Amino acid sequence: MVGWVDRANSKRAHTLAQIPHEWIDPNVINEMKERGYVNTREYLDSVLPQNEVRITALTATELIERIRTRKLTSFEVCYAFCHRAALVHQILNCCMEIFFDDALNKARELDNHLVTTGKVLGPLHGLPFSLKDQVNLPGIDTTIGYISRVGHKAVKRSLLAKVLENAGAVFFVKTTVPTAMLASETVSSLHGRTLNALNLNFSSGGSSGGEGSLIGARGSPLGVGTDIGGSIRIPAAFQGLYGLRPSHGRIPYMDVTNSYEGQELIPSVIGPMGSSIQDLELFAKLVIDSESWNYDPQLVALPWREVPHVKKDKLRFGLMVSDKLVMPHPPVLRALMETCEALRRCGHEIVEWNFPHNKRMIDVGEQVYAADFYDEVQEILETTGEPISEYMKIARENISYKGHSGRALGVSQWWEISREIRSLKEQFLEYWEKTRDLTSDGKPIDAIICPAWPSAGFRDGDVEFGCENYTVPFNVLDYSCVVLPVTQVDSAKDIPDASHSPFSTEDKKIHEYYKPEMFSGMPVCVQVVCKRLEEEKALAIAAVIEGCLANVEKL
Amino acid sequence: MVGWVDRANSKRAHTLAQIPHEWIDPNVINEMKERGYVNTREYLDSVLPQNEVRITALTATELIERIRTRKLTSFEVCYAFCHRAALVHQILNCCMEIFFDDALNKARELDNHLVTTGKVLGPLHGLPFSLKDQVNLPGIDTTIGYISRVGHKAVKRSLLAKVLENAGAVFFVKTTVPTAMLASETVSSLHGRTLNALNLNFSSGGSSGGEGSLIGARGSPLGVGTDIGGSIRIPAAFQGLYGLRPSHGRIPYMDVTNSYEGQELIPSVIGPMGSSIQDLELFAKLVIDSESWNYDPQLVALPWREVPHVKKDKLRFGLMVSDKLVMPHPPVLRALMETCEALRRCGHEIVEWNFPHNKRMIDVGEQVYAADFYDEVQEILETTGEPISEYMKIARENISYKGHSGRALGVSQWWEISREIRSLKEQFLEYWEKTRDLTSDGKPIDAIICPAWPSAGFRDGDVEFGCENYTVPFNVLDYSCVVLPVTQVDSAKDIPDASHSPFSTEDKKIHEYYKPEMFSGMPVCVQVVCKRLEEEKALAIAAVIEGCLANVEKL
Repeated sequence: MVGWVDRANSKRAHTLAQIPHEWIDPNVINEMKERGYVNTREYLDSVLPQNEVRITALTATELIERIRTRKLTSFEVCYAFCHRAALVHQILNCCMEIFFDDALNKARELDNHLVTTGKVLGPLHGLPFSLKDQVNLPGIDTTIGYISRVGHKAVKRSLLAKVLENAGAVFFVKTTVPTAMLASETVSSLHGRTLNALNLNFSSGGSSGGEGSLIGARGSPLGVGTDIGGSIRIPAAFQGLYGLRPSHGRIPYMDVTNSYEGQELIPSVIGPMGSSIQDLELFAKLVIDSESWNYDPQLVALPWREVPHVKKDKLRFGLMVSDKLVMPHPPVLRALMETCEALRRCGHEIVEWNFPHNKRMIDVGEQVYAADFYDEVQEILETTGEPISEYMKIARENISYKGHSGRALGVSQWWEISREIRSLKEQFLEYWEKTRDLTSDGKPIDAIICPAWPSAGFRDGDVEFGCENYTVPFNVLDYSCVVLPVTQVDSAKDIPDASHSPFSTEDKKIHEYYKPEMFSGMPVCVQVVCKRLEEEKALAIAAVIEGCLANVEKL
Repeated sequence: MVGWVDRANSKRAHTLAQIPHEWIDPNVINEMKERGYVNTREYLDSVLPQNEVRITALTATELIERIRTRKLTSFEVCYAFCHRAALVHQILNCCMEIFFDDALNKARELDNHLVTTGKVLGPLHGLPFSLKDQVNLPGIDTTIGYISRVGHKAVKRSLLAKVLENAGAVFFVKTTVPTAMLASETVSSLHGRTLNALNLNFSSGGSSGGEGSLIGARGSPLGVGTDIGGSIRIPAAFQGLYGLRPSHGRIPYMDVTNSYEGQELIPSVIGPMGSSIQDLELFAKLVIDSESWNYDPQLVALPWREVPHVKKDKLRFGLMVSDKLVMPHPPVLRALMETCEALRRCGHEIVEWNFPHNKRMIDVGEQVYAADFYDEVQEILETTGEPISEYMKIARENISYKGHSGRALGVSQWWEISREIRSLKEQFLEYWEKTRDLTSDGKPIDAIICPAWPSAGFRDGDVEFGCENYTVPFNVLDYSCVVLPVTQVDSAKDIPDASHSPFSTEDKKIHEYYKPEMFSGMPVCVQVVCKRLEEEKALAIAAVIEGCLANVEKL
């Protein structure tokens, strides 16, 4: 039997071998460093052919429009993204599966289709599209980060992949995940470490870190990630991207491989990551309007609903500056303040949001994730002997510290957790409804604005300075969340706050992690949170926020 | 400490003592029997004052209209129903809590409100309304059939009760349930046995047997039951009533007491039982339009959707004559055939429905219900020493026979059941979609027509001849189901089928239970099943079926 190290190395070599040899450059990362770059996006803009740089700078919406109107061919577009993705992967280690040939053939077919019929296949006609490893394409491995699953080629196609293909998407890569998708960095014994697109010293985030890294470096215009504790929002935030965590039941997860299948108290959801709100809307609308609920019983038969009033009415926001457990770093606080100031200037109203049970929400999330003490993960790892990740060791320690017996729960304990979640959902709704008492017109808030993450990421390897406090609660609640970039760390503006009295040792550790020079230039996102199944509203509000921020810049 | 028998007797006496003494008649059941009656509805029609008989014969919709237009007062109506309910309870043992005084005071208030303002409070203005024991009203016991909970007065009001009260409903009784609501008959050590409204020898069904019995005898015009395995549909079918089992997330269950709270794989749901489709629609529309999703996080924010096309288009039905496990009795088969014949005559199309995995759906239902081997129930019973019910003993035996270890499951086994349910839901949807191949216009069916129960009920005590095969699968699927009465057993028409080759020993036992004379005159219902969250469509289709059946009668 081949050892797990050899199997992993062999898989990595195999992935690399899928790149055409003229695009292989074993020295690329050294050249980049020698030229003083840490930002892969900027570096590639400086070395790739100008026409490819122009193409890969466009949003998905712009690309589709140019393909539809035949200003660009799908082939040109796919070629540019394949070329760029090949280099991004060699720098950041973000792809698990590469199939450029299939993509370029498909692109040619779509170009022919458009020329011949004069019609596009669908709203994504000719767009290169990346997929997180979990999404199944027949004949291609789905490993979810386990060495033992190398060579497990998928048989079925995920329903979402069918929907996207029917809309004209062109798949060209599947991207890396941490083992079992259970980490906020993207590290596995199988693929190694996935780095941040904007700073080689930083983590890509996780678990959809491969997507975040690839899209962040413009190696893909649009892709899908999954999110059970922040896995779409964290890499989106770390790379200055846009990400939608939809509610469960909105975007089809059918035949997408997952860890802990059948765990439905805090369901993993699947959603888009991209470079503009319009791109996320494009994705969400077309997927929802595919009426996939006729096939996937987990979906709610709820068509896409336009929300024109959101774009013209006065809106009310609840601002959660901190959860009183972990104080966000100064750049994140500034991002929140600038966002609220911009909204106020446009006539919107901001009230305070101080839900008192944040800790219970985070604790119950941990209890769900660790319900079997990660036995499922350990059992799969043991089949090859690959070691359990540091992240999971920490998770086990944390949950033991909080009273977990170290053995899988019984069904009655599971139901107890379920009751706790229901109670928290009820209290959260009640608190939301009570914001009527705070707003000037007696209406409850439309959305919460809060951090997506307390810092502008963390350095690769520093996952212990991470903290899912601002993502997990909305998985527990199953609310609609959009992450959007608002600013970058500015070491001149974002001075450490020496006056902060830490809430706890964890808070102290994270607080002291902030160094202006280290974070300088990293993107800072904020999070918009609407209620369950309000994806249309969350996206529309994110667009409103962008508009208000743009207005302020013009002043 | 008072023994459980004494506590139960004392509670029964206390319930009875809530009835005004002029309505107490310890001899009523003997008089009824002496006069040759088994049907409580018919008997009470013969002994009650004619104006009360006229009032209690009206549907909820008719009553509300007469109150609104001041042809009747709410007081007259409530008085008539209180009086009748008092007698029904003394005959059938269907009430747990009686509060006529509160009801009559409330009715007077509503009458005054209408006179003073000229306006009704809401769409149920002045309507007497009965509630299953589980629904909480402050100051009133919620026992869910446990002696140990006698005297546990509710503090909170169930959200649904608030909605109904805001709509003008007048609560006057809460009705009996079997211990923990886990039986298809309504029997507990606490209250005894609840009998069938139409035949004293028969069971009321369960677990909403108190509602079924009371409404069946016209002691209430409209009420709510709950359903986790058929508990609305079974008593509705046994009493020739209309019942809606809504999908989870449509009607608020918040602050309604339940067994196994936190068990969310097959959730219990709450819905109306009444005497007409219009009454169920009235209830569903007003409750859904209350936007209770702003308070109850389990609800889907899905407003009531009118479905005018259902009432004018050609419809397609899948007819499930039998599940190939337990053959329905001849009267049920005739009810199905007459229904389909009536639909065909009106231009609708019927195709065969033979989903191949009915057994798996029933088995997985049992696994969920018995996941902790009923430890929760036993633990609560042990606090007073009351014995575990026969029904639960049988359930334990059955599940042990099928491989249950007799110990509560672990969380990984629970997730395995969850995966099985998801897989069944996917296969069911796929089968539904494939009915396109069977219909003349290539569209999938609109609804399934099937039995609600394989027989027209069973004699009181004969619960072993019951069988939830036609209800449980739709709890597993969480589909929208309506039960409606179609015919009565006719001993001349409904001849035993000697040619049937039993599918199993269970089927043989149930098959041989059919005796035309014994069942003669009992009501026979059919079940209409639409997909998840299609309550509007299921109700509209039930109305179409009634219209078609009425058309045939006119011929």
